[in-house]
Amino acid sequence: MDRTNPIGFFDSGIGGLTVVKAVSQLLPNENIVYFGDTARVPYGSKSNDTVVEYSLQAANFLLRKNIKLLVVACNTASSVALKDLKRFLTIPVIGMIEPGSKLALRESKNSKIGIIGTNATINNKAYSNEIRKLNPKIKVYEKACPLFVPIAEEGWIDHKATELIAKEYLTELKTKKIDSLVLGCTHYPILKDVIQKVVGKSVKLVDSGTPAARLVEEYLNGRGLRNISNQIGKKEFYVSDIPSKFRDMAERFLGKKITHLHKVELDELVNE
Amino acid sequence: MDRTNPIGFFDSGIGGLTVVKAVSQLLPNENIVYFGDTARVPYGSKSNDTVVEYSLQAANFLLRKNIKLLVVACNTASSVALKDLKRFLTIPVIGMIEPGSKLALRESKNSKIGIIGTNATINNKAYSNEIRKLNPKIKVYEKACPLFVPIAEEGWIDHKATELIAKEYLTELKTKKIDSLVLGCTHYPILKDVIQKVVGKSVKLVDSGTPAARLVEEYLNGRGLRNISNQIGKKEFYVSDIPSKFRDMAERFLGKKITHLHKVELDELVNE
Repeated sequence: MDRTNPIGFFDSGIGGLTVVKAVSQLLPNENIVYFGDTARVPYGSKSNDTVVEYSLQAANFLLRKNIKLLVVACNTASSVALKDLKRFLTIPVIGMIEPGSKLALRESKNSKIGIIGTNATINNKAYSNEIRKLNPKIKVYEKACPLFVPIAEEGWIDHKATELIAKEYLTELKTKKIDSLVLGCTHYPILKDVIQKVVGKSVKLVDSGTPAARLVEEYLNGRGLRNISNQIGKKEFYVSDIPSKFRDMAERFLGKKITHLHKVELDELVNE
Repeated sequence: MDRTNPIGFFDSGIGGLTVVKAVSQLLPNENIVYFGDTARVPYGSKSNDTVVEYSLQAANFLLRKNIKLLVVACNTASSVALKDLKRFLTIPVIGMIEPGSKLALRESKNSKIGIIGTNATINNKAYSNEIRKLNPKIKVYEKACPLFVPIAEEGWIDHKATELIAKEYLTELKTKKIDSLVLGCTHYPILKDVIQKVVGKSVKLVDSGTPAARLVEEYLNGRGLRNISNQIGKKEFYVSDIPSKFRDMAERFLGKKITHLHKVELDELVNE
């Protein structure tokens, strides 16, 4: 494996670009290949079998790009498919659950942690199992917030309806007196202002992006795989569909312009 | 072609079951085969190319079940793929746009019609083109309401947030003084109470389900293909994914119990 090989990322759509942003801020000279499965988005409302199948297809696609490390930049896929991905791949695989859980444990003072995510992430209890494995005394309260993804994609960041929806989802968590809340979906950082307003300033919001980026750095250092070039890394984006408004939305998530955007045909994914 | 062959229906997911319901009320002794592409739902936010590809795959799957007529029970697929479906299929193909448009023209007294639908349906101007073709003097006002599908699937039928979202989408249409509003997505009848409340009682809501069922009857009669059995028809449901809560949701859409539910593997669709 060569140091200059890219880091691979995949997500059901474009939410994972928030993780790419964190990694490229910390490790700007790494080459990056991103796959967003926009033809089959979302994953969070689908069955475990389907999410595992899609995740293995995404990983196989990225392996053909000679990635040196895979970041599962999607909480749903991390919750459901990480074990299978680790079993089939010989390169290191980093999911969102472990770094997010560890950061939540460091942030919480009162040992009461809230988790929000898609139906799949919450139904699979991915975060609560991981956190209890790290510290069985922690109290974990979970809530699926399925409308947050479409709301974030609509860009209703400060709409009154968004606040009402957030209240509906988060009021019960507030009564549990949590002091930290894991944003267990890569779309949710887009809505962090309204989430913070509803849960109150005393609750620390935990986003897996930054701790995942640190874990990537640690893995690469530990294996002598850091790209030591002094040039800014190349970023390539592959998607299974390019709908209208795609570029606007992707640039909102990444916070900068996207170049090198390519469409992947579905049979290229399915027949591998 | 035999009279006892089934009628085929497809939709991106389960919204099309509202059309199955209308057809089976009008033609209870017809056999029905339904395909819901739940592994790739929704279609309304995806590109035209992808929706055409998925629609042709769905139609091919149903042709292998020896359907005598195809109902495209999805407004997005009807808007984007109907022409291609009609070109490739030798059996009759019925979409949602024509029956919905005709009913809206019959209902409207002041010649001002509103249309709501997914991004794909509205961007393709399917309804406004059809209505203007039928009567160029009609004024048509269109609005995409992308959050209505996830809201309907969440079952937030009378939630305050739903009303706020509906107000955001529909207020401008109200100012145009429309007297009828086409529910241009098979999910929307689920939200008809809140939509009616927001647009006011004077606006007639138009749902394509019933006129589509009448068109099915007309086509079958015209071709001597009505099933003249006096037994209740068999209903078979195929989906590309069966997520948790699927059965509850499907039964909410259909208004009765579902039997004969089968999962179709994606490579069975893609490789045909």
